[in-house]
Amino acid sequence: MKRIADSTIRRLSMYLRYLEDLDGRGQLTASSDELAQLCGTTPAQVRKDLSFFGSFGKRGLGYPVHELTAHLREILGLEHEWKVIIVGAGKIGAALANYRGFRQRGFTVVGVYDNDPRKVGTPWGESVVRSMDQLDHDVAHEEVRMAVLAIPSENAQQVVDLLVRAGIRAILNFAPAQITVPPHVSLQSVNMAMELERLSFELTHGESIQAVAG
Amino acid sequence: MKRIADSTIRRLSMYLRYLEDLDGRGQLTASSDELAQLCGTTPAQVRKDLSFFGSFGKRGLGYPVHELTAHLREILGLEHEWKVIIVGAGKIGAALANYRGFRQRGFTVVGVYDNDPRKVGTPWGESVVRSMDQLDHDVAHEEVRMAVLAIPSENAQQVVDLLVRAGIRAILNFAPAQITVPPHVSLQSVNMAMELERLSFELTHGESIQAVAG
Repeated sequence: MKRIADSTIRRLSMYLRYLEDLDGRGQLTASSDELAQLCGTTPAQVRKDLSFFGSFGKRGLGYPVHELTAHLREILGLEHEWKVIIVGAGKIGAALANYRGFRQRGFTVVGVYDNDPRKVGTPWGESVVRSMDQLDHDVAHEEVRMAVLAIPSENAQQVVDLLVRAGIRAILNFAPAQITVPPHVSLQSVNMAMELERLSFELTHGESIQAVAG
Repeated sequence: MKRIADSTIRRLSMYLRYLEDLDGRGQLTASSDELAQLCGTTPAQVRKDLSFFGSFGKRGLGYPVHELTAHLREILGLEHEWKVIIVGAGKIGAALANYRGFRQRGFTVVGVYDNDPRKVGTPWGESVVRSMDQLDHDVAHEEVRMAVLAIPSENAQQVVDLLVRAGIRAILNFAPAQITVPPHVSLQSVNMAMELERLSFELTHGESIQAVAG
């Protein structure tokens, strides 16, 4: 089993964004220098990140933009549509359900779920908010593998267990709670307050300590 | 100038959460083993992270929970209130403006701004959505240093330039755009689609490649 750092995957996502942009503008090749500059890293890092997945580009000629774009989409698993459900029809859930960036990358929100009877059945896009009781059936029937968790901390673990039992294999968690998943399930947590704490850290220490990627 | 990795700051935030919890339950000391287990890291990593900021705890006795909690709050710059403004009164802006986790950590949203005349003046909490034209004056007058950017990509850089000129020193960016800031301004970007791409990567490669923190 190979191991790859989170920060590498993030950079692959970033390379892809710039390459798509270059491809759209008809640029045929891109050097590691150019990609490095666009993404705020070093040419050596670009070469190292890409070499992990095979041999792209030719020495002195740079990377072929169109081919590398396709390769990166494949590496990131973006060459097909992913069905996603959102659990929690609160403000964050609603914001995410309509997030343009998801659709643009091939992530389609197929259902929004809540356990609040006042929310179940209320309109959501061309559909309605669904009851949590339906989740098991829907995930199996619609072959959904990804879920976004946008609920309060209190019930987070309980809902995660339910998602895992239903067949969900990847969870993006916005609940500010520490949750655990079995080894076969991927978990990515976004904690808004921790993002602000990093900024608070930097403002506090000013130029005496510099935060670096890693 | 010292350099510190983003991942270290994230772990400090996590240690703080668990220590506050232990402190609230009256636990007096915590070992690096205990902190490591709670936060999913190694005892050596815990000791290394904390040693960066001084000498805490005594060999064999563990860390004093209450004191280390206070130290970590100080290190992260959380011992006072931070005023935050939110730019963009759309769905994500609204969700963030009401995000409980911000208030709990001492981040107070003092204003929400938008440039859409249909939104300006509409109720927001005990106040109303303010016009972007007021931003310059308010930031100076209320001594705000942090801003959350929740607007579409198109105008992101333009708004960032305006924030920086107004005196904002730290920006949490939710716009899926690559933006640049001068060296004296801190920037942290959250890209929801990139979070899903990491999960898509993991689902695609299954157990052949394991993503690790870093």
